[in-house]
Amino acid sequence: MSETRSEISQLGEFGLIDHISRGFSLKNTSSIKGIGDDAAVLSAGQDDYLLLSTDMLVEGIHFDLAYMPLIHLGYKAVAVNVSDIAAMNGKAEQITVSLALTNRFSVEAVDALYKGIHAACENYGVDLIGGDTTASPSGLVISISVTGRVKKDRVVYRSGAKPNDIICVTGDLGGAFIGLQVLEREKQVFLADPNMQPALDSFEYIVGRQLKPEARTDVVSDLAEAGVLPTSMIDVSDGLASELFHIGKNSGVGVRIFEDKIPIDQVTFNTAVEFNLDPITCALNGGEDYELLFTISQADQEKIKNHPDIHMIGYVHDKANQHLMISKQGTIVPLQAQGWNHFAS
Amino acid sequence: MSETRSEISQLGEFGLIDHISRGFSLKNTSSIKGIGDDAAVLSAGQDDYLLLSTDMLVEGIHFDLAYMPLIHLGYKAVAVNVSDIAAMNGKAEQITVSLALTNRFSVEAVDALYKGIHAACENYGVDLIGGDTTASPSGLVISISVTGRVKKDRVVYRSGAKPNDIICVTGDLGGAFIGLQVLEREKQVFLADPNMQPALDSFEYIVGRQLKPEARTDVVSDLAEAGVLPTSMIDVSDGLASELFHIGKNSGVGVRIFEDKIPIDQVTFNTAVEFNLDPITCALNGGEDYELLFTISQADQEKIKNHPDIHMIGYVHDKANQHLMISKQGTIVPLQAQGWNHFAS
Repeated sequence: MSETRSEISQLGEFGLIDHISRGFSLKNTSSIKGIGDDAAVLSAGQDDYLLLSTDMLVEGIHFDLAYMPLIHLGYKAVAVNVSDIAAMNGKAEQITVSLALTNRFSVEAVDALYKGIHAACENYGVDLIGGDTTASPSGLVISISVTGRVKKDRVVYRSGAKPNDIICVTGDLGGAFIGLQVLEREKQVFLADPNMQPALDSFEYIVGRQLKPEARTDVVSDLAEAGVLPTSMIDVSDGLASELFHIGKNSGVGVRIFEDKIPIDQVTFNTAVEFNLDPITCALNGGEDYELLFTISQADQEKIKNHPDIHMIGYVHDKANQHLMISKQGTIVPLQAQGWNHFAS
Repeated sequence: MSETRSEISQLGEFGLIDHISRGFSLKNTSSIKGIGDDAAVLSAGQDDYLLLSTDMLVEGIHFDLAYMPLIHLGYKAVAVNVSDIAAMNGKAEQITVSLALTNRFSVEAVDALYKGIHAACENYGVDLIGGDTTASPSGLVISISVTGRVKKDRVVYRSGAKPNDIICVTGDLGGAFIGLQVLEREKQVFLADPNMQPALDSFEYIVGRQLKPEARTDVVSDLAEAGVLPTSMIDVSDGLASELFHIGKNSGVGVRIFEDKIPIDQVTFNTAVEFNLDPITCALNGGEDYELLFTISQADQEKIKNHPDIHMIGYVHDKANQHLMISKQGTIVPLQAQGWNHFAS
């Protein structure tokens, strides 16, 4: 190792990815799109593209087995990968699952994990086609790769947003983050007094958002049926603000969203207030909602305006890097993309 | 978790994979071949198959940074994945690299790792197209997925070996395992007296076999040029005996090999003896050689008999599960597939 030592935490995850990918270029004609979108794009015959994405989940970083049942973890690990394929407007078809396990995990524990993986495979129509299984000196690591397909003329990148496009987001935001706060609080209560039963009943919706998120494959189908091809798309894994920045940066445009249009569930809102957190900040920066954020041309607005789960929250403009939110009071607030920085200590 | 507790170590890695994959079946028409070969096979247009494989390397299990320089680790992590594609008679084209890193790794350390990854990408003509980067509470985990291509009529499985086929193996065997023993010994010497310099000069070849293995993509090309399509193929990652069992099991045949035909390098042989290890046992069960083991029909024997790096070590017969070695003394010894069991404590 060299004498200089630079900390990864100073770069952050996106900075590190930029740093790493700088020295690499694409040389095979089958590599259509590499690093920098929800999935890579490979050629796969005359009409189709093959999509490939991968996610690594590390115990103690992405999940805590104190409140994450292994069956939910298995399901979620698949769902978040399927979500990346959905974000390219594709259909997930295959996964590989690699596991590193300490000997504290029994065969029954592995079975519980795979029961969740199996349920997700059934639900999303995905085949388990391979993987790797190894020991681990500490903790559980799950690395899933997913492949999907999309017709060449239906692939949607982060880079296609045009000025005057309408910004849409599905479902509601911030719930997974607030659900995590509830789970963390109950864990502390339990650690202080193991006889306490967790009081999760009234938080069922948001706890479910954290423990068993779904990929919005339904929305991908609905858009196709409505005859709408988004101009850009991304899934909300790091938080709405962070994803808007990705679309803005990749498309060379700016975004303007309206605070009062951001969809927030009532339980999310009330629980955020209970935790002294600003519900809008949770929606903007909470992450792990796995909703789809996309832009459509104005011509397509009519086609989906009655969809019950698609919310139009703003529009695209031509000033690159000018990402703004109009508050409920009508003031203009610059958006800040916090996203996640697992490397910050 | 259920009340019964079964230990993973009792199943072993292959038993665990069998156990896991039991509940899964292939449903998408694009899934040609799933779990159970060196790579999964997906449809990819009229003439080609897409190959997909994945490997996870865990610090403290697969490598020890006390003697594995990060640049070599990066190279090796790519090479072992490319080797899986070569074992399907394919050409690797893309990889994704996922990393979990503790904060003891600096940006410079990550750069060293990616320098090795980059060198391997250049050497094998592979594009880095994606990945994931995350923090880790302890240790380094590298998960690489690789995609490759092969013409539909050129794909080679583990399952095609026929009675009377000739068994071939490339290069030489056991070196990577003996190289590891040397590195382990030097580590102990260093730990006992940090002023000692490692004495590795005379072990350069076998240490290199451990630290910087190469995928035998050259042999895949040579076979194609010679007009030879192997009837079955696998790469030697777990040891010759273990791989012979895989071919035998998947093809429903038995194998018979000759001890005196097993290629062992002179340094490997001498060093094994120095360590009081049987060189043949090292070649049979050492693993990590990343040579290719394949079978050819007798009609093809002439075409490659002068290849300097392909060794014909035996033949296939019709008695399934009867895997035998003819010793130098002419006695018949049943082969035992030890392979690796990372889960054994």
